[in-house]
Amino acid sequence: MKLDHTAKGVYAIAATPFHPDGRLDTVSVDRLTDFYLECGVTGLTILGIMGEAPKLEPEESLAITRQVVGRAGVPIIVGVSAPGFAAMRSLARGVMDLGAAGVMIAPPPSLRTDDQIIGYYAQAVEAIGDDIPFVIQDYPLTLTVVMTPSVIQKIVNNHRSCVMLKHEDWPGLEKISKLRAAHKAGEMRDISILCGNGGLFLDFELERGADGAMTGYAFPDMLADVVRLQQEGRRDEAHDLFDAHLPLVRYEQQQGVGLAVRKYVLQKRGAIASDAQRKPASVISDKAKAEVDYLLSRLARYDKRAAF
Amino acid sequence: MKLDHTAKGVYAIAATPFHPDGRLDTVSVDRLTDFYLECGVTGLTILGIMGEAPKLEPEESLAITRQVVGRAGVPIIVGVSAPGFAAMRSLARGVMDLGAAGVMIAPPPSLRTDDQIIGYYAQAVEAIGDDIPFVIQDYPLTLTVVMTPSVIQKIVNNHRSCVMLKHEDWPGLEKISKLRAAHKAGEMRDISILCGNGGLFLDFELERGADGAMTGYAFPDMLADVVRLQQEGRRDEAHDLFDAHLPLVRYEQQQGVGLAVRKYVLQKRGAIASDAQRKPASVISDKAKAEVDYLLSRLARYDKRAAF
Amino acid sequence: MKLDHTAKGVYAIAATPFHPDGRLDTVSVDRLTDFYLECGVTGLTILGIMGEAPKLEPEESLAITRQVVGRAGVPIIVGVSAPGFAAMRSLARGVMDLGAAGVMIAPPPSLRTDDQIIGYYAQAVEAIGDDIPFVIQDYPLTLTVVMTPSVIQKIVNNHRSCVMLKHEDWPGLEKISKLRAAHKAGEMRDISILCGNGGLFLDFELERGADGAMTGYAFPDMLADVVRLQQEGRRDEAHDLFDAHLPLVRYEQQQGVGLAVRKYVLQKRGAIASDAQRKPASVISDKAKAEVDYLLSRLARYDKRAAF
Amino acid sequence: MKLDHTAKGVYAIAATPFHPDGRLDTVSVDRLTDFYLECGVTGLTILGIMGEAPKLEPEESLAITRQVVGRAGVPIIVGVSAPGFAAMRSLARGVMDLGAAGVMIAPPPSLRTDDQIIGYYAQAVEAIGDDIPFVIQDYPLTLTVVMTPSVIQKIVNNHRSCVMLKHEDWPGLEKISKLRAAHKAGEMRDISILCGNGGLFLDFELERGADGAMTGYAFPDMLADVVRLQQEGRRDEAHDLFDAHLPLVRYEQQQGVGLAVRKYVLQKRGAIASDAQRKPASVISDKAKAEVDYLLSRLARYDKRAAF
Repeated sequence: MKLDHTAKGVYAIAATPFHPDGRLDTVSVDRLTDFYLECGVTGLTILGIMGEAPKLEPEESLAITRQVVGRAGVPIIVGVSAPGFAAMRSLARGVMDLGAAGVMIAPPPSLRTDDQIIGYYAQAVEAIGDDIPFVIQDYPLTLTVVMTPSVIQKIVNNHRSCVMLKHEDWPGLEKISKLRAAHKAGEMRDISILCGNGGLFLDFELERGADGAMTGYAFPDMLADVVRLQQEGRRDEAHDLFDAHLPLVRYEQQQGVGLAVRKYVLQKRGAIASDAQRKPASVISDKAKAEVDYLLSRLARYDKRAAF
Repeated sequence: MKLDHTAKGVYAIAATPFHPDGRLDTVSVDRLTDFYLECGVTGLTILGIMGEAPKLEPEESLAITRQVVGRAGVPIIVGVSAPGFAAMRSLARGVMDLGAAGVMIAPPPSLRTDDQIIGYYAQAVEAIGDDIPFVIQDYPLTLTVVMTPSVIQKIVNNHRSCVMLKHEDWPGLEKISKLRAAHKAGEMRDISILCGNGGLFLDFELERGADGAMTGYAFPDMLADVVRLQQEGRRDEAHDLFDAHLPLVRYEQQQGVGLAVRKYVLQKRGAIASDAQRKPASVISDKAKAEVDYLLSRLARYDKRAAF
Repeated sequence: MKLDHTAKGVYAIAATPFHPDGRLDTVSVDRLTDFYLECGVTGLTILGIMGEAPKLEPEESLAITRQVVGRAGVPIIVGVSAPGFAAMRSLARGVMDLGAAGVMIAPPPSLRTDDQIIGYYAQAVEAIGDDIPFVIQDYPLTLTVVMTPSVIQKIVNNHRSCVMLKHEDWPGLEKISKLRAAHKAGEMRDISILCGNGGLFLDFELERGADGAMTGYAFPDMLADVVRLQQEGRRDEAHDLFDAHLPLVRYEQQQGVGLAVRKYVLQKRGAIASDAQRKPASVISDKAKAEVDYLLSRLARYDKRAAF
Repeated sequence: MKLDHTAKGVYAIAATPFHPDGRLDTVSVDRLTDFYLECGVTGLTILGIMGEAPKLEPEESLAITRQVVGRAGVPIIVGVSAPGFAAMRSLARGVMDLGAAGVMIAPPPSLRTDDQIIGYYAQAVEAIGDDIPFVIQDYPLTLTVVMTPSVIQKIVNNHRSCVMLKHEDWPGLEKISKLRAAHKAGEMRDISILCGNGGLFLDFELERGADGAMTGYAFPDMLADVVRLQQEGRRDEAHDLFDAHLPLVRYEQQQGVGLAVRKYVLQKRGAIASDAQRKPASVISDKAKAEVDYLLSRLARYDKRAAF
């Protein structure tokens, strides 16, 4: 089951569950996988930044991949961004052998010019092989690499194995419109566009032509509902649900704090046993916890899933 | 009427009105000033990035200051960030002579270390004189300069003329808590903290100890209401109002697009005659206008001020 | 006498002389201008970073331009980089009215993509007018903006008023070769290429096709000699002279310290009355002065001009 | 044989030899190790950026370490910078078990504030253990992280296992003076300071108090001679030799091109069988090769080791 350009719906960016002492919590890996499936996701993305991938030993990364692939029954995308192509190749070939559906590659922060970005993806494809479907991660806010629509278009047209864009440029609505127009004009192969940025603009991103979301918001069921409502043409209902969640979506979007909030809510929802992060961990203050609790209590008035 | 650390409420970041041909629209300057006052602002900040300051001739900058100061009757803060201290000094002395209440200074993007930031503000104070009250603009997302609480503390303690922090670090809730704690512990003079970032976190920033908002959201009356409700201890009502506006607040927070959206809404509200920007202008597509209209129509269900 | 693509030789980046109390030293402005002419420069560039331009009042900038243009009798290029197009336009039109030959424009550090860079120069030309010859400053080390040869080619072809490249990319030898090849292949109009970076690679830059140097090294006479020797085909002599100066060229290339070293040497050579910088000034320690003196004494063995 | 603060002389940054088809050239690993020893180095640094470490599989990294440690008989420092602490810990513990003398850690480019830098090294020490001697790599030009002397002082004082600074700030002469003064004033433990930056300022860095060089210049024998001459108080001779090499030192200092030049010269000197880099490789044009050959022929007039 390899990833292709028809992918849509919600690919949850999966958290990685740890015990309070820092050991991997393999029981919670299963529980969390089941939780995501019950939320209606169409796929999972593991070993991303939000999955604390840089804190994992290589064997742990492969072990998690094996466990999630074996359990999920949906396509699994694995983050393989690395400072060198040797490590990228090892991990990419390794996880594909374990049954992953594709890999995601972010550009290193040092890239500046259009040619550098296009060249980097060419080198990455040469390293991992052109038989592995891959996702471009377009995340200038964190990565400081800015890709124009024409750069993305060139990468897509240069590499048939490029099947998806993880869109998290900000602002990025016009970018989706331009990429979709380029496809309609016959200038670019069709690709799947799933949106990140914590879902902060998902309401309009879908209306601009995105196929869904790829993000780690702790209510993936809301994301799935919004995608479904939009597909069914129930625009106002989609926005009503989205707007009810927006205060929390926005709160989770705080870099550094976000993962702590996310694990805190996932634990409350029973998806993981502990909200512990492996060191070095970001922390959530008591004030922040109280703020999240308050947001959840307000959300619960509209969405029972937030009632604890 | 000089700015001091007791400043609170809402300082609107004022737009600069232009005719469609690029000339300054002085009639709208008055109309917009009146609009802000009717919205309940306690002050105004002019000649910031959102005021298209870099597109103004020096004489225009002084003319606008003269006009707004003469009309407003509230404290006016003027942005004087400049690539050199000569230009900063000229503008700062010039606008204070015209009756401005204080100036705002952003650090240049090249600064990296704590000492460099502290040193830069010392040089700025030496340049403009220590008799001009000034505001630190702490905006890492755009300026790439990161100030820790202890750096801000040192700047405040080094310079009695430092009376306010424009807080737009993100995430920044813990920073407000730390600065307030430093004051309580006797480690820092008291300062006013007004929050930017388009108001995206204003709800909780106030609860953490901020004194109000300094931002350009096109409904400064909402910002003023939220500040007032929080001051009166009506927390739930404050959040209800804030949350109703959040989808639009978030939409306006898109860099580049934001000013176009803001002027579009201000024009709809009758505050300016034209939403034109002086060149080079950011543009708002027809799709984006339709999205803003949709957000306004949804907002109008809760807040009549958004009904047109 | 407007700048055009046939410019060659040495354009010295002129220092700005100050009295120890910070006032402009107008007597030394004349003396320094004469010194540069005696050194054999073919032009001068004033109001650059090394000219402490950001510390000058607008009237001072115009006064210096008037004085240098009136005295020099060679083409004067004026740096007009500014945070906004209004200030850029004012300064550019002002200095051209005073007889400047052209202006130099550096891209702002926020630019990232090829399109952003090309678009910025289009906006700049629209602002200043397409009748003013301009120089692209390509200085990624300081400005963080990276321009590929094809980006430079587009800017040149888009704007007939683009007549020169100040080349200070590093490494940049292949870039010169590529630009010259693009011209030979009929893909780009001819432009003048003068090299900066303190002259650190001037020996080979000339051999790759550069027309000369635009830098502030305190021995512009050496730069002029090296250009002349290369033009006359006396390669080994050119390198012998260059290599003798290289230890000092390299020492001057230290950012922050460089200007202090440069003014110290210019004062020793009698070109300016004081090595004072206007505040905020970089300083040269006693140890650094002793190091420069040592380098000069060593240099004097090969080049009498360094004997004091 | 663990690294400590008394380290001095020259630690060559070792290249990694490959066959033209990209396989590791283990015969040349021995030959190159012997070459360095014959050049008079006191230690070696392997798996740095110049060693193409990111292109190596983890097993290859350990194999090279084992081979070089077994052969060299001098202290080996291993670069263990990594995007995550798990990988850093694995590699650090692994190479120490193989007999490495210490590890080198560069800060990730995202760090900005003093506290972030100090905190990062605390986390790194916690990850690898406080029994492994480590080197701070202070290289702002490439890493964009700026460390003040007081930040370095804090890291040194916080961690007894911090024994060396790889100094490649630029400009950095005053920094060495300040760090040595801090030690003399009893404010900082003593550390070894070895200088990088391709050796471009080694002449004066030694006079400011550095203990030697850690860089990859293709004539480590020259570096060793300069260090020795300075130690013996033969200042003029040290500068004479250094200055003869400076044109080539400077040429090698071009980022991207530098490694290709270095391997080209090492191959000429017989230290490696092929100048091939593993993909993605930087290339050296025919023009650049001819320039290097010309520099070598000029150098050979003063230093027979450059005659081929």
